[in-house]
Amino acid sequence: MDEVPGSVGTSASFSLRLGQTMFASASLLFMSLGVEFYSYTAFCYLVTIMGLLIPWSFTLALVDGYSVLVKCPIRQPGILLIIVVGDWVLSTLTLAAACSTASVVNLLLNSHGPFCPPKFCSRYQISAVMAFLSWFLSLASSLFNLWLLPSL
Amino acid sequence: MDEVPGSVGTSASFSLRLGQTMFASASLLFMSLGVEFYSYTAFCYLVTIMGLLIPWSFTLALVDGYSVLVKCPIRQPGILLIIVVGDWVLSTLTLAAACSTASVVNLLLNSHGPFCPPKFCSRYQISAVMAFLSWFLSLASSLFNLWLLPSL
Repeated sequence: MDEVPGSVGTSASFSLRLGQTMFASASLLFMSLGVEFYSYTAFCYLVTIMGLLIPWSFTLALVDGYSVLVKCPIRQPGILLIIVVGDWVLSTLTLAAACSTASVVNLLLNSHGPFCPPKFCSRYQISAVMAFLSWFLSLASSLFNLWLLPSL
Repeated sequence: MDEVPGSVGTSASFSLRLGQTMFASASLLFMSLGVEFYSYTAFCYLVTIMGLLIPWSFTLALVDGYSVLVKCPIRQPGILLIIVVGDWVLSTLTLAAACSTASVVNLLLNSHGPFCPPKFCSRYQISAVMAFLSWFLSLASSLFNLWLLPSL
């Protein structure tokens, strides 16, 4: 069986997972520290999803790191299927959260109301960008593992 | 080769495509007829994506109808790959548009401002629901065709 770069148990996958954890944590921190995010549904949703994505990616990063160290990649089709489906569901939810946040920030910026002091709005924007980046990395993980699945 | 229900050239696929076209048209009509959708970025984005999804689904509905009538389904891997990728890209964009619209409508409803007369807001909500339904059907088409792809 040939090794697919980016599938579970390779160093590329380890980097992808670390990137996901990093971007998701950054998104969560920019959104939740010191600003009143809970007054907007979309921002609460983003915080919830990031709270799901961070432990998932971090756990799989640990598994990848262990697999790389002991040079024994995971090749059970059942486990791989769970990882692919979990990644796919989480990346869909992350995309939804990122789009919602981005559109709400855009509306707040354009409405010229008293909603959004400039300091807060730029933090919301950075949070949305980080969420998009973690969506992209999560999708990449899912596709690489899906590519490996039929060869098992 | 066994027939996968829902893949290109079957009657199930024809129904899926008709459903996509119908829901996308309903979403477009509810959003664009008589309301000032162009003052919100998210609503303009929804209208753009629905304008892409409708001709795509309608063309593939015609292809499916023709294939069912002449009993000769399409089985070229190249064409199938284009359809899978196109469906997947369009379903991602539709999900993004639906989430953006839903979150903006939610914000407009909760902010108690002068933005959103109740008559318009309920039309925006119906439009978002229709967009979610067309996302779901488009994703189903993409998955059925992806399932068929490795067997070619």
